[in-house]
Amino acid sequence: MQKLAMIKEGKAKRFYETDEVGVNWVEYLDQATALNGKRKDRIIGKGSLNNQIDTILFEDLMANGIKTHFVKQVSQNEQLVKTMTMIPLEVVIRNAASGSFQRKFKVEYLKAFKKPVVETFYKSDALDDPFINESQILALEIVTETELAFIIDYALKVNQVLTARYAAAGLKLVDFKVEFGKTMDGEIVLADEISPDSCRLVDEKTLESLDKDVFRKETGDLVDVYTEVLKRLIDSQEATNV
Amino acid sequence: MQKLAMIKEGKAKRFYETDEVGVNWVEYLDQATALNGKRKDRIIGKGSLNNQIDTILFEDLMANGIKTHFVKQVSQNEQLVKTMTMIPLEVVIRNAASGSFQRKFKVEYLKAFKKPVVETFYKSDALDDPFINESQILALEIVTETELAFIIDYALKVNQVLTARYAAAGLKLVDFKVEFGKTMDGEIVLADEISPDSCRLVDEKTLESLDKDVFRKETGDLVDVYTEVLKRLIDSQEATNV
Repeated sequence: MQKLAMIKEGKAKRFYETDEVGVNWVEYLDQATALNGKRKDRIIGKGSLNNQIDTILFEDLMANGIKTHFVKQVSQNEQLVKTMTMIPLEVVIRNAASGSFQRKFKVEYLKAFKKPVVETFYKSDALDDPFINESQILALEIVTETELAFIIDYALKVNQVLTARYAAAGLKLVDFKVEFGKTMDGEIVLADEISPDSCRLVDEKTLESLDKDVFRKETGDLVDVYTEVLKRLIDSQEATNV
Repeated sequence: MQKLAMIKEGKAKRFYETDEVGVNWVEYLDQATALNGKRKDRIIGKGSLNNQIDTILFEDLMANGIKTHFVKQVSQNEQLVKTMTMIPLEVVIRNAASGSFQRKFKVEYLKAFKKPVVETFYKSDALDDPFINESQILALEIVTETELAFIIDYALKVNQVLTARYAAAGLKLVDFKVEFGKTMDGEIVLADEISPDSCRLVDEKTLESLDKDVFRKETGDLVDVYTEVLKRLIDSQEATNV
C-alpha cells in the first residue's frame, strides 16, 4: 500500500490518501495541545505512544465484536483506517466524576456513578462544540433517532470493553470521549483515536493520573506517563495470553 | 379557609399557610423581574392577570386528566394550591426555535421542530441552574429513572393540552417551562405557575410576541399584552362552551 497526498491535518494526526479506495493512512504526530489549541507543544515520542496504545485498544475492541474504522498498524507512529464520513458528535462516557462534570456539579473527585453518565457534544466550530441533549440532536437532525440510539449503545459497549482492558492493566477508566463515522457502505462504526489523549485514567491503587491531564495541568511528564500506560497494556496482554 | 403565616416569597408570588393541612394560599404579586432578578419592576395588574390566566390553564389541564397542585382561585390575584415538595428541575418544552435554543444553535427564529425539544435544568442557586441531561440527572440522583420518565412524559402531555388551548385562542405556543412537585401523599404532580411569564406565545397570524419577552426586551407593555392573552383565552373558552 502506498501513502499518497495529505487530506487533512488535525491537532495530533495527519491523514493521507492511499492507493486503495476506502483506506486512509494516519500519521500520529509528536504534538500535544491544550486550551482548545492555544497551547501547543512538541513532545518527542508522543505520536508513537498514542499509535501503539490506540492499536492495542482498537484490536481489543474488535476482538470483542465492536466494528471500528481500524485496519492495521503500519509503523511505530502510523496506522491504516477506513475512510470515514464523521458524525459531528462527541460522546463522553463517565464512570466517575472528574473534569467538566465535577466543575459543573461540584461533586467529589472520582465519586463513582451507579450507571455510566453519557454526554453528547455537537462538533461545530461556529457554535464552539456545545453540550447538547438527545432531543436537541434530533431537532437539529444531526442523526436519526435510530442512529443516535445505536451510537449511545455502542459507546456504552466500548466502555465495558475498555474498562475491563484497563482494569487488567491496573488502571481505572474514569471517563473518555469517542466519535463515530460512516464507512463508504454507510455503516456506523467507532472511529477517531482512543488513547490517554481522550480519556482519564488513574492508577487503581494510588489514584495517580495517567493521561493527558498531566500535560493540561502540568503535573507530570506526558511521555513517562503514556510509556507507563503502554507498558501496562502490553504486560497485561501477555499475562492474558499465557 | 383562613390565610395564615407567610411561608416564602418568590420573584412574583407569596406563599402562605392556611388552616387546612396540605393547602397553601398563593398571592400573585404586581411584580416582574428580568436578568435573573437584577431588574425588578412593579407592574400594577400583573398579579391579577397571571393568576387568572394560570387558573384557566390549570383548570383546562385538569379537565384533560393532568394531575396538578391547583385547588381553586380565591380572588383576582389569589389561589389555593396543594403543599408541594418541589423537584429541583425545570423542564422546558420547545415546539419551535426561540430564546436560548436559537442563540445556542444559531437556527432561524421560530423554525418548527418535527418533535418537541425537551430540555432539563437543575434548579440550584449554588450551581447557577445548569442545563443538565437525563443521564446526569440520574447520576446525581435528583429523581429516579421512573420518576424522570414520568415527568418528561407528563411535560409532553401538558404541551399537547396547552398547545391546543392556545391555538383555540389564535396563539402559537413556542416554548414553555414547567416544574413538578410531590404532594404530601408522595404523588408527582404538575406544580408552579403557567402563564406568559413562563412561556413564549406568538399571534398565529402576525407572529407578534404576547409574553414576558415584551418586558425582557422592552418592546411592549406587559399589562396590555397579558390582558390580550387573558381576553383571548376567555373568548375562546366561551366559544368552545357554546
